Amino acid sequence: MTAVLDASSRWLPARLGEVEELLREATVGYGETIGADADATLDAGGKRLRPMLVLLCAGPEQSGGVVRAAAAIELVHMATLVHDDVLDDAPLRRGLPTVAATSGRNRAVATGDLLFSRAFALLAGAAEARAVSLLADASVALAQGELAQRRDAFDLGVSEERYLARCGLKTARLFECACLLGNDDEALREFGAGVGLAFQLLDDVLDISGPPERTGKARGTDLLDGTVTLPLIEAAKVDPGIREVDLPALDPAAAEALCDRIAATGALDRVRARALEMVAEAKRSLERTDFPPEQRHLLELVADGVVQRYS
Amino acid sequence: MTAVLDASSRWLPARLGEVEELLREATVGYGETIGADADATLDAGGKRLRPMLVLLCAGPEQSGGVVRAAAAIELVHMATLVHDDVLDDAPLRRGLPTVAATSGRNRAVATGDLLFSRAFALLAGAAEARAVSLLADASVALAQGELAQRRDAFDLGVSEERYLARCGLKTARLFECACLLGNDDEALREFGAGVGLAFQLLDDVLDISGPPERTGKARGTDLLDGTVTLPLIEAAKVDPGIREVDLPALDPAAAEALCDRIAATGALDRVRARALEMVAEAKRSLERTDFPPEQRHLLELVADGVVQRYS
Repeated sequence: MTAVLDASSRWLPARLGEVEELLREATVGYGETIGADADATLDAGGKRLRPMLVLLCAGPEQSGGVVRAAAAIELVHMATLVHDDVLDDAPLRRGLPTVAATSGRNRAVATGDLLFSRAFALLAGAAEARAVSLLADASVALAQGELAQRRDAFDLGVSEERYLARCGLKTARLFECACLLGNDDEALREFGAGVGLAFQLLDDVLDISGPPERTGKARGTDLLDGTVTLPLIEAAKVDPGIREVDLPALDPAAAEALCDRIAATGALDRVRARALEMVAEAKRSLERTDFPPEQRHLLELVADGVVQRYS
Repeated sequence: MTAVLDASSRWLPARLGEVEELLREATVGYGETIGADADATLDAGGKRLRPMLVLLCAGPEQSGGVVRAAAAIELVHMATLVHDDVLDDAPLRRGLPTVAATSGRNRAVATGDLLFSRAFALLAGAAEARAVSLLADASVALAQGELAQRRDAFDLGVSEERYLARCGLKTARLFECACLLGNDDEALREFGAGVGLAFQLLDDVLDISGPPERTGKARGTDLLDGTVTLPLIEAAKVDPGIREVDLPALDPAAAEALCDRIAATGALDRVRARALEMVAEAKRSLERTDFPPEQRHLLELVADGVVQRYS
């Protein structure tokens, strides 16, 4: 995302700095241990993609409420990461130990709840009921997506349609929400959803392709977790034996071997191509906005960045 | 709480019916399995104490937003129950199996997130930023209380002060929030906090005293969980050997024996007396409101009900 920061005038980095400040404030003052857990999540960093979308959709002339909304959506995202790691029992996230791994699953549930609550406290302070509704509805979708993922776990018969619906809930809705928090323009709904879906597809490619030194986690983490993603669904079209694999019995070595088998079918390139198509379509939807060329250009750079990354 | 329903004119049961309707709506339409989990939590019922406080503080002439706020606060309460049961690995709640026990801890984390998100979605629809702020801040306190409880777990040296601070966060703040959601009157802050604290004290007495057939859970559940409560702190003043008990090594039989040992010191009566004092003081704070006698009377009945119960 450095391309976006380079291409923007000074306003975007300055606003992102304010977002970072709010994120820091939202996680301190809760006693040392709690602060440390939340700080660990903050420090694990991430791309701040969702805040960036809020800010870019709002444009350079924006109210203080936009910065709060940008911080709030990142707090919800962080909360779901902390809870996801409880669900997945994940040891690493972005190359660093997860809260669930260092402080136990129990504390991670409560830390996630804390981050989630702070998101709404922050947003409500900015006092726009529409914004609270948008974020709350997106959070409902996130939880539904997580539940759908649980329900479909270890099911090698999951259809592409079902996979895409799950990604819509789990990922795309929050991207859509980010855009609409920045600007009440319906064209942005399609842009955000498309970028979010492409983001998830690429995430699922990276889980299979690695390399771990760049993605910050072992290859095949999703497979070990029982999460059936598009690369596997695509691969099984070419190599149907993949559907006979005993997913619950996989160990890390077998998961890596399955990654190689999926890659050998060419599925990763096909899924990457799908993600690129989604990004291209999302970019076209920006033509329906009345954004000035610079603002559109920056949003296009974010969209491109989503499929040009390793972590 | 039947005393409150009996004493009120018809408006309270009618409004509570509307709350129930909203709770039902908030948990359906998320796919069968999810609906079933959330329904189980709904059906486990509970006293709907927090919605009742919202409605009673608002009084008979209230807007539709009040009913939504009453449902929203119960959804937050339900969400924390579902997450608490994940943390505690509890098999039973109100005599019924918990979501964590029937559907696994993983699904319970996501179900709690779903209930939580729906609370804010419901409240934001009622469009009062003050209400969202109140509920979000109370939710922050809940998570902090949960984290404090984790931090203090199995620590027999926990002070009464620290215990009370934890109960303030974990329980009293949501009662306070219920009252303030109903009516923006500062005197209600003290009333709600006092009633909430008394509620928690009595909960902690019931965990030691049982009987399980009335409380719906085994005696000593908190002890098995490592949660040090006021009855134990009080008992250790008379019988200091209690502080030497190896809490992490307790099994259910040993926990029951420890319950008997705590009861033998007279600690339960002393804690019950403290709870009654808190309720009396809370009731006195109602004198500072301009509520008509009937409204005050109903709130006094709720306050009394909090310490006259077995579940």
